[in-house]
Amino acid sequence: MEFCKVEKNEIGKNALLLVLYGNDQKVISLLNDRLKTYNYKIAIGKVGSMEVQKVVSAIETAAKKNGIISEKFYREEHALYHAIIDALHGITRGQVELRSVQRTVGLRFSILRGYPYANQDEGEWIAVALYGTIGAPVKGLEHEAIGLGINHL
Amino acid sequence: MEFCKVEKNEIGKNALLLVLYGNDQKVISLLNDRLKTYNYKIAIGKVGSMEVQKVVSAIETAAKKNGIISEKFYREEHALYHAIIDALHGITRGQVELRSVQRTVGLRFSILRGYPYANQDEGEWIAVALYGTIGAPVKGLEHEAIGLGINHL
Amino acid sequence: MEFCKVEKNEIGKNALLLVLYGNDQKVISLLNDRLKTYNYKIAIGKVGSMEVQKVVSAIETAAKKNGIISEKFYREEHALYHAIIDALHGITRGQVELRSVQRTVGLRFSILRGYPYANQDEGEWIAVALYGTIGAPVKGLEHEAIGLGINHL
Amino acid sequence: MEFCKVEKNEIGKNALLLVLYGNDQKVISLLNDRLKTYNYKIAIGKVGSMEVQKVVSAIETAAKKNGIISEKFYREEHALYHAIIDALHGITRGQVELRSVQRTVGLRFSILRGYPYANQDEGEWIAVALYGTIGAPVKGLEHEAIGLGINHL
Amino acid sequence: MEFCKVEKNEIGKNALLLVLYGNDQKVISLLNDRLKTYNYKIAIGKVGSMEVQKVVSAIETAAKKNGIISEKFYREEHALYHAIIDALHGITRGQVELRSVQRTVGLRFSILRGYPYANQDEGEWIAVALYGTIGAPVKGLEHEAIGLGINHL
Amino acid sequence: MEFCKVEKNEIGKNALLLVLYGNDQKVISLLNDRLKTYNYKIAIGKVGSMEVQKVVSAIETAAKKNGIISEKFYREEHALYHAIIDALHGITRGQVELRSVQRTVGLRFSILRGYPYANQDEGEWIAVALYGTIGAPVKGLEHEAIGLGINHL
Repeated sequence: MEFCKVEKNEIGKNALLLVLYGNDQKVISLLNDRLKTYNYKIAIGKVGSMEVQKVVSAIETAAKKNGIISEKFYREEHALYHAIIDALHGITRGQVELRSVQRTVGLRFSILRGYPYANQDEGEWIAVALYGTIGAPVKGLEHEAIGLGINHL
Repeated sequence: MEFCKVEKNEIGKNALLLVLYGNDQKVISLLNDRLKTYNYKIAIGKVGSMEVQKVVSAIETAAKKNGIISEKFYREEHALYHAIIDALHGITRGQVELRSVQRTVGLRFSILRGYPYANQDEGEWIAVALYGTIGAPVKGLEHEAIGLGINHL
Repeated sequence: MEFCKVEKNEIGKNALLLVLYGNDQKVISLLNDRLKTYNYKIAIGKVGSMEVQKVVSAIETAAKKNGIISEKFYREEHALYHAIIDALHGITRGQVELRSVQRTVGLRFSILRGYPYANQDEGEWIAVALYGTIGAPVKGLEHEAIGLGINHL
Repeated sequence: MEFCKVEKNEIGKNALLLVLYGNDQKVISLLNDRLKTYNYKIAIGKVGSMEVQKVVSAIETAAKKNGIISEKFYREEHALYHAIIDALHGITRGQVELRSVQRTVGLRFSILRGYPYANQDEGEWIAVALYGTIGAPVKGLEHEAIGLGINHL
Repeated sequence: MEFCKVEKNEIGKNALLLVLYGNDQKVISLLNDRLKTYNYKIAIGKVGSMEVQKVVSAIETAAKKNGIISEKFYREEHALYHAIIDALHGITRGQVELRSVQRTVGLRFSILRGYPYANQDEGEWIAVALYGTIGAPVKGLEHEAIGLGINHL
Repeated sequence: MEFCKVEKNEIGKNALLLVLYGNDQKVISLLNDRLKTYNYKIAIGKVGSMEVQKVVSAIETAAKKNGIISEKFYREEHALYHAIIDALHGITRGQVELRSVQRTVGLRFSILRGYPYANQDEGEWIAVALYGTIGAPVKGLEHEAIGLGINHL
């Protein structure tokens, strides 16, 4: 039974493990190392907010700072943006809103870029995973939530 | 570095690990054993369909067969139903539809029932996790998707 | 304390009372009489289905049979259609679907047409009210739901 | 023909009558008395705003002040929150937003907690009803709207 | 091959051509002249914002200033409002939000009022067309979008 | 005043003109010729249905038959699919459904593939435009609708 086995073709699962084990530095290091042998580019981070806008910004900023997407091309921004919004659907379930419906999130996020398909000609894809809590703007009045968005780059 | 550490208070994460590692019987057994020491009731299964309705039915049937919810009370059905629909939002991202928008899913699911909060008076909660692929009704034209729904019982 | 007082300018409330008291023939008669003194045209009916489409059809058919809208003009059909869909949002809360998300409804409906505004030049409006139960396709596994749609004619 | 007959098993209808007759103190008193004989806990109130958030807060505050839900348990907050959001779907029909789509509401609300099912083991449920007007942020440019959310507690 | 042929019964297409050719004053003049021979009332304008609310306001203000709708009647405001929101669905595709999901628009809009149906008894209708760009709040990080809303008046 | 002037960087507008002028063969030929000088690949077609699924299929089939996208790569299918769904949001305004909410469409569609951005490194993009009528499943009970989806390839 191998620990945290990583499959190259499961970009989504890989992004999800990064956020699920995000508070365990050793596991994150291990996953990081393995994913890099598959040439995945990786960024992870945290964001807590009542503003969807801030969640989007935090992920975009991390992606640019870590060289996951280029700031020069709109197409990369476009691909990432829709992956983020898709991931937010899993978190918000029904309407991508937080403050306006009186709730807040505390999330870890991961961004992965690589070639997940066996056929290399399928090109690069990007995955955004989110995991954390959503609830009332009062500590403890919350439950967990997950989200994953995947897009071609 | 402990393998597949399980926290009692992370009902969502526990349900997610069950679907993410769902093709590794040893990990599933290990998770199962640990979750049962926390008195979690567990059901796992698989469903592939172009009909949202069949996904809902497969999970409801598994929940009843495995004694996760009672067939006698609507309140348990009601709690499970909304957890399923919430989880489907993460899978479908925007509209809980499959066939009508020409797509299909192949999913593993898990259902967990237990007391995730430190305060036992918070009572029982149910979590439904979904993981698999979504895409065109042609093998390979698909990418991964995740979903999680949590509700009080 | 007057019983079932009816205000001319509350077309929505009037439509709602007709569905809420729908199983009490005496109240319905009383409301009917009072609403007719305000020149409201009225139709009431019942529909149970797992198909949204059948709910829409049942209401449209009742509206035409009772002379609430004319079959000759699309504009009346258009006004009624959007009032029905609006009312269905209250019943379905999130996505106007029934069978595809494994649920069914049993509804009473009312349709009112008249001049609700003090200023007669505001012209005619139409209200559609729905009340009944929504739930699993099993008797008893359901709770109540309400919906109201209002449109200018 | 009995006035304002109240059925114990129609928690939704009861909540709806409280908002529909909300400007008639005598009817409200009568309904209150009858509902209390069925051990229903009741809160009513009013809120006008362009912010969905303020509508949610007003109802949550009223529920806590009147002892409808306990502030100690997240599960009660969770049940109430989703009942409120469900009710808001009927009011907003399509997207639970007000200011961002340039509209405002003036609403009466009611909250009911009790045992609506014949089988006492179905436990407690909560209903939130909303009735009032929605429209442009200009007095008179508005029409009526209704909403009802029901959840197990 | 006639240039910019205009059909009386295509109110939507006419509104769309006005926004698509909006930066070509000669074409706009030509379209304007032809549409006026069919007794269409016309308003055109531009709006750029991260607030949906401002887009709605800009169109409503233009409609009133140009006498497309009367400020005296709610029914005209109501018809226009829903045409605007319908048009915004085409622009925003999924959720009528801009700032909260970190995006902005730069739009031309047109409003047309007239009798598009062969049968004059179908009465007046209103069309709102929107065309421009949507994207990140950074110049150039954007692509085109279109929207059309049609309602009976 | 040049007729049907075509800008290379307006992939969306170009796709829209193709559907708006779709019943005028001479204009279509002219647009086709001009777009091909910019190396745009083009497909146009028609579809009428109560099934969203058939609309999606018709466009996908036309895209493949005309060599707009390759059948070998999922990434191209994925890009096209989301452009189609985006375009359908403009047509359906609120929920991408037809039959289930009792309505039908008669649409012309166009698909364009090319390099719309001044910076060639922005790579290829795809645009899907839809124009036609939506309404009750009865001839004449309908109005126009438009939709546009744009995605990076």
